[in-house]
Amino acid sequence: MGDIFLSEVMGTGMLTLLGCGVVANVLLPKSKGFNGGWLLINFGWGLAVFAGVFVAFSSGAHINPAVTVGLLASGAEEYAAGIPVTFGNTMIYFIAQMIGAFLGAILMWAAYKDHFNEEADPAAKLGIFSTGPEIRNTTSNLITEIIGTFVLVFVIISFGNTPDQLGPLAVALLVVGIGASLGGPTGYAINPARDLGPRLAHAILPIKGKGGNDWSYSWIPVAGPLVGGLLGGLAAAAVSFV
Amino acid sequence: MGDIFLSEVMGTGMLTLLGCGVVANVLLPKSKGFNGGWLLINFGWGLAVFAGVFVAFSSGAHINPAVTVGLLASGAEEYAAGIPVTFGNTMIYFIAQMIGAFLGAILMWAAYKDHFNEEADPAAKLGIFSTGPEIRNTTSNLITEIIGTFVLVFVIISFGNTPDQLGPLAVALLVVGIGASLGGPTGYAINPARDLGPRLAHAILPIKGKGGNDWSYSWIPVAGPLVGGLLGGLAAAAVSFV
Amino acid sequence: MGDIFLSEVMGTGMLTLLGCGVVANVLLPKSKGFNGGWLLINFGWGLAVFAGVFVAFSSGAHINPAVTVGLLASGAEEYAAGIPVTFGNTMIYFIAQMIGAFLGAILMWAAYKDHFNEEADPAAKLGIFSTGPEIRNTTSNLITEIIGTFVLVFVIISFGNTPDQLGPLAVALLVVGIGASLGGPTGYAINPARDLGPRLAHAILPIKGKGGNDWSYSWIPVAGPLVGGLLGGLAAAAVSFV
Amino acid sequence: MGDIFLSEVMGTGMLTLLGCGVVANVLLPKSKGFNGGWLLINFGWGLAVFAGVFVAFSSGAHINPAVTVGLLASGAEEYAAGIPVTFGNTMIYFIAQMIGAFLGAILMWAAYKDHFNEEADPAAKLGIFSTGPEIRNTTSNLITEIIGTFVLVFVIISFGNTPDQLGPLAVALLVVGIGASLGGPTGYAINPARDLGPRLAHAILPIKGKGGNDWSYSWIPVAGPLVGGLLGGLAAAAVSFV
Repeated sequence: MGDIFLSEVMGTGMLTLLGCGVVANVLLPKSKGFNGGWLLINFGWGLAVFAGVFVAFSSGAHINPAVTVGLLASGAEEYAAGIPVTFGNTMIYFIAQMIGAFLGAILMWAAYKDHFNEEADPAAKLGIFSTGPEIRNTTSNLITEIIGTFVLVFVIISFGNTPDQLGPLAVALLVVGIGASLGGPTGYAINPARDLGPRLAHAILPIKGKGGNDWSYSWIPVAGPLVGGLLGGLAAAAVSFV
Repeated sequence: MGDIFLSEVMGTGMLTLLGCGVVANVLLPKSKGFNGGWLLINFGWGLAVFAGVFVAFSSGAHINPAVTVGLLASGAEEYAAGIPVTFGNTMIYFIAQMIGAFLGAILMWAAYKDHFNEEADPAAKLGIFSTGPEIRNTTSNLITEIIGTFVLVFVIISFGNTPDQLGPLAVALLVVGIGASLGGPTGYAINPARDLGPRLAHAILPIKGKGGNDWSYSWIPVAGPLVGGLLGGLAAAAVSFV
Repeated sequence: MGDIFLSEVMGTGMLTLLGCGVVANVLLPKSKGFNGGWLLINFGWGLAVFAGVFVAFSSGAHINPAVTVGLLASGAEEYAAGIPVTFGNTMIYFIAQMIGAFLGAILMWAAYKDHFNEEADPAAKLGIFSTGPEIRNTTSNLITEIIGTFVLVFVIISFGNTPDQLGPLAVALLVVGIGASLGGPTGYAINPARDLGPRLAHAILPIKGKGGNDWSYSWIPVAGPLVGGLLGGLAAAAVSFV
Repeated sequence: MGDIFLSEVMGTGMLTLLGCGVVANVLLPKSKGFNGGWLLINFGWGLAVFAGVFVAFSSGAHINPAVTVGLLASGAEEYAAGIPVTFGNTMIYFIAQMIGAFLGAILMWAAYKDHFNEEADPAAKLGIFSTGPEIRNTTSNLITEIIGTFVLVFVIISFGNTPDQLGPLAVALLVVGIGASLGGPTGYAINPARDLGPRLAHAILPIKGKGGNDWSYSWIPVAGPLVGGLLGGLAAAAVSFV
């Protein structure tokens, strides 16, 4: 159990440290990547997954509650080699992912602290930690997050059927692609922990000039990805990917 | 047969969901990837192929009638392991690819619906679903699509001769490259289903403020890729790639 | 012999079709990749190598006289499996590479013909076919081409020592990197055939409004890469890469 | 010993030749990659690592004192196959890395000499050789470099646990990701030799119109990466990556 916990904390921490980091680089004033474009953000998040998957190998590198839910829904018997699907293990995954995502965002803030101090707009600060929609519409935003996470989980579960030696690169590139293609409306949370963990960090950290945490939106990047992951796992089972 | 059908529907659906999605992200107002550049579009389409190939593994992941035609022309005996080249199977591939491309475009529209509503220009809306030339010229546009698809099919059939473990990444990167290098004049359909399926979706969907479907151009991104795929398959056989 | 010839013609043709193609896409008016940036050009050329290496597998995919010269200088006994290093074979490689590069550039022109017609500047047209320096200085330009090609050949010969399954992707990414890092001053010919073949095509093709072929510069992207390849091969032998 | 030395000199030389080269391409006037953006710089440095790792295979391709320190701290018994961890070998690594980084920067300058002459700003010239912070703050800059290097070393040591055949591509992509995500404040030295070697080259070379070497900052990209590497190695040992 300790192994799962530590592995998922490290992997999800790496994910938000690097993932939120690239957004900081692009949004914050005086940063060398300022205004660096959407593809830079896509590669930054994709390679954040890349690093996170390597360090979380012993727990199967879910680093995302939607992936855990997807595997559960798919009827898989193990979350990773030697880790049976049980209620207890599921809870350990969820808790570890939330804690990791929270801690990674704190490290990201430490790396960019002086640049946060230069930023005047509170919304930009929050936007580095958590996602927000460009056009606020509960139904539409949910649909977009459901579709994006469905693609993530459905394709990940299909990976085992095609021989290759890409390892963590396959999921990293898939995340680059989902961001490029489906990230436009909501910023592709596609991972409840990735969004809620850093939002809690934003709420707690003494960030200079920070504003609210947009709690009214915060349930969408949790619920949408959970539904998307569930549907992805069910669909993968239905078409015999598992 | 059902296996081929479902596999190609899923793969081609993934292709147009993610592929048309990146164009929506770059073209539609208020989208986070707005004006994100040609390389973003190239990676988006390439990684759309990447995802599509993984989920369509059981049918050999053609997800493109031009690839099916190319294999047929090359004299291959099987479309994938255990799937003989027959008239019936060829038809199943074609029909499934069209249906998949149609459905993927509908999902893409669902993900970007509010942003479509913000767009005033009907041509931009159509341009997210289907390709259109920058300079309209039947002969030139046909030639460009033939060359692009020739490269796609000819190089894909050569893959088996070079040992590597890239799996679906090889075709994904090939598509990134074709888009970067040969996509400038016509937007690289290089796949009849990728163009016609979403065009039908555009015709049928209740898209706010949409214009015509440019049927007068629509045969070019069908005929050009079919000819290019045919030539690619014949050439591959002539130089002993098969 | 016919096998080497055809293989190198196809590979080098693919190289200049796609490589010169991405420059056309970025430079020519009304092209969808217009003004798409240096990284787009770097990926376009890198993936042109990727495609070229796949189709030229049977000759070891030199597709570059500087690579052939480097292997010769390194003391290798074979140019590829079953192809001994002989004077005759060396000549076949050189001739095939030139012919392939010439033909690929013609196909590129066919794909972009209407866009060439829209371009008013003759220098831009030539710049799509062949390289030219930003600051004209024989010594400096030669040094830059020598260094770039040295890196290419030296690193390629080292590939066999590190286990991986990247296949043609390794050389493709190396070319992306050389372009990104050393392409600034002269546009990284790093391949005599890639520069001279398309320059001959430019000289012969009926391109609307074309200007001169800049013959006074043309020997630099031939001589520089040959010297760089020679040094790369000698250095690889000296440090026991061969 | 000579093998380690030569291998690390070559690898680190390749690293700064290509790595500083991409910065020259983006910063220097009249260069073809001028103003090419942060992602271009990230890919340039990542692929510089890619090339450097291939040519330094016989010494395990540290090409970075922070990696050597990390392996030492992790309790590894060998620096590479057949190279025991000893004080003497550690010194050979450090000295070779410094010399390689110094020599690579000189070659980079040779490739871009005419463009350096066109640049009027001395700070831009130094910025091509060595890193500098956007907001000067000793504590913050140290923290950023420590975090970035921690990620580098911690993830590299984890590589062996996940099966893949990416070879040098894994570390190359990790460096692309660290640059994209954590390079904003200080320009990601994450390698003492990469910063100090080129700074010495800048001090010694007859660069037209050059300014100071910013010695007052120079200890930060040395000390930060060494501390980060040390912590990365200790953490990797603590969580049983070694």
